[in-house]
Amino acid sequence: MTNHRIALIPGDGIGAEVLPPAQRVLDALGRRHGFTLSYTSYDDWSCERYLREGAMMPEDGLDRLRDKDAILLGAVGCPGVPDHVSLWGLLIPIRRSFRQYVNLRPIRVFEGIDSPVRGAVAGEVDLVVVRENVEGEYSEVGGRLNRGFDDEMAVQEAVFTRAGVTRVLDYAFGLAARRHGRLTSATKSNGIVHTMPFWDQLVAERAEHFDEVSWDQEHIDALAAKFVLEPARFDVVVGSNLFGDILSDLAAAVAGSIGIAPAANLNPEREFPSMFEPVHGSAPDIAGQGIANPLGAIWSAAMMLDHLGHPDAAKDITDAIAAVLAKTDVRTRDLGGTATTAEFTDKLLELL
Amino acid sequence: MTNHRIALIPGDGIGAEVLPPAQRVLDALGRRHGFTLSYTSYDDWSCERYLREGAMMPEDGLDRLRDKDAILLGAVGCPGVPDHVSLWGLLIPIRRSFRQYVNLRPIRVFEGIDSPVRGAVAGEVDLVVVRENVEGEYSEVGGRLNRGFDDEMAVQEAVFTRAGVTRVLDYAFGLAARRHGRLTSATKSNGIVHTMPFWDQLVAERAEHFDEVSWDQEHIDALAAKFVLEPARFDVVVGSNLFGDILSDLAAAVAGSIGIAPAANLNPEREFPSMFEPVHGSAPDIAGQGIANPLGAIWSAAMMLDHLGHPDAAKDITDAIAAVLAKTDVRTRDLGGTATTAEFTDKLLELL
Ligand SMILES: CC(C)[C@H](C(=O)O)[C@@H](O)C(=O)O
Ligand SMILES: CC(C)[C@H](C(=O)O)[C@@H](O)C(=O)O
Repeated sequence: MTNHRIALIPGDGIGAEVLPPAQRVLDALGRRHGFTLSYTSYDDWSCERYLREGAMMPEDGLDRLRDKDAILLGAVGCPGVPDHVSLWGLLIPIRRSFRQYVNLRPIRVFEGIDSPVRGAVAGEVDLVVVRENVEGEYSEVGGRLNRGFDDEMAVQEAVFTRAGVTRVLDYAFGLAARRHGRLTSATKSNGIVHTMPFWDQLVAERAEHFDEVSWDQEHIDALAAKFVLEPARFDVVVGSNLFGDILSDLAAAVAGSIGIAPAANLNPEREFPSMFEPVHGSAPDIAGQGIANPLGAIWSAAMMLDHLGHPDAAKDITDAIAAVLAKTDVRTRDLGGTATTAEFTDKLLELL
Repeated sequence: MTNHRIALIPGDGIGAEVLPPAQRVLDALGRRHGFTLSYTSYDDWSCERYLREGAMMPEDGLDRLRDKDAILLGAVGCPGVPDHVSLWGLLIPIRRSFRQYVNLRPIRVFEGIDSPVRGAVAGEVDLVVVRENVEGEYSEVGGRLNRGFDDEMAVQEAVFTRAGVTRVLDYAFGLAARRHGRLTSATKSNGIVHTMPFWDQLVAERAEHFDEVSWDQEHIDALAAKFVLEPARFDVVVGSNLFGDILSDLAAAVAGSIGIAPAANLNPEREFPSMFEPVHGSAPDIAGQGIANPLGAIWSAAMMLDHLGHPDAAKDITDAIAAVLAKTDVRTRDLGGTATTAEFTDKLLELL
């Protein structure tokens, strides 16, 4: 029987509350589909550790993860530690060191979830944001000059490489070819004059290799507006690190699913472990109460199974998520119910 | 009688169709409120000129505008010319040379306009996006390396200066103090590690000078989501050049007003002329048909009058816009009607 070695990083806040439900679901699927999962949990890679020892993870943290088949992460961040310290101390090094250059975020409107947008109808909105995940606007290049003086300034370099952009575009075009054959590229080449025209050029170049995909491009400001006006129109949307980040959160809000959205940080070549994480944060306001919504983590676990070669098991999970939302009124507080994390997970397992 | 010297730049596409309605409204208000406007029109500062002569405006273009009291612009851009060429050849040099460092974009839900967002109720959503307009992510600093080779890359420098950020923050805090006393700052200091923590620091510093304003900050991804989920919650939102651009288009879409939204590019010190422009583009698909919606240009003209010291006249215009939308069903095609630009303007003038 295949065994998959999974690293669990609960992180901060509700991170530790949403991973056990995901494990319960994973184990149930393993029994049904004939695979096993063995877990190694890195419980203290967190803000707490940072406050105690000055680092979010041990020095050899990345090495400990390297031989795993996948990483399941809860959430990172807490009120006492600046976000850029916690994120650049844990989440972002994992994305970068393991060349997880694709950040994949599916967005669906589920029956039984109220969307804030009139046009976002269940069954009609079903899109995937493919976000470049290791270069672009997020970079360590830059700094501060004349600190504390009147002429102080900060500069930040966005870096886009031909190889880095090409590989994520190829992934996105390939995904569009396997889905409904439509790709939209997010750009801002009218305002951002060096990197975005380059991005556009590479999109046009790669498109030549994917005849079966019809594509267009939209400036990020207009595209954000269209996500609200005509969300059902999109299939695969590809964007830079920053644009993909904004668009995926926005699309999840449009779908009413910000609390349950998943993300996969993929190294498509499988040279390194990929990482799966709910999009929601550590939610310090409700942490420790056992009422967090586990669906983001569970849906992320589904993406992990898909990546590990179990698409059927993955589909069982997304079907169960759809069913628990459409057919029951058991739900956590964020979705307007009163169920605890455990009760909600029980119901989902029942429907699995 | 005070006279104001106005530069008109119709630009491309429907730009030339929406400025005459704005002029009709301005002249009517002048008669009522006791001021005059004299216009100089720069009709061929456009893509057409670029295709003919290689430049969007004459070499001494900026000098010709310098002695005007304000600039009213239609729209810039056309299919045959790359956007970064047309924009960086006309719109952006005006913003920058005249230190129009505040880009002000009011967003309201009007009665009689359908918003795509359930929570966007007329009278409840009334916010202003204050966008930094001359530095930040839009910069000429950067370029392309190893063009055409495998190791090609493009870099773009975002530059934030203490003086540049401080002045726009002071404007935004001041505006919040005159409105409902609430300011939200858009940031991404968890991902963009050099410039955004600097931005946050300056926000905290400037806040000390505005006791009467309560403020918070949100990461741009979460903020975009909140614009959809709780649009009524915002009063003044301040953001960098890129973030302000995205948020203002998004907010206009949420309000159902993308076709009628105005923008002011302000030099608050009045050392140089300020520029007023509808947010919509040149709309080549409907140009020349006389059916463009003039409300964006008319609302921009209202902002211009406010800036020129005629707040009462400005309010007359926004009241007439509200009235024509709430009380009549005369409207242009984009709003679901059949009226021409001229008919819609007639009706608005009737209600003025
Ligand atoms: C056309 C473009 C350069 C411009 C901008 O991004 O500034 C436009 O989107 C705007 O918002 O005025
Ligand atoms: C926490 C932050 C650094 C992160 C990002 O922007 O990448 C988050 O917003 C996400 O989308 O995963």
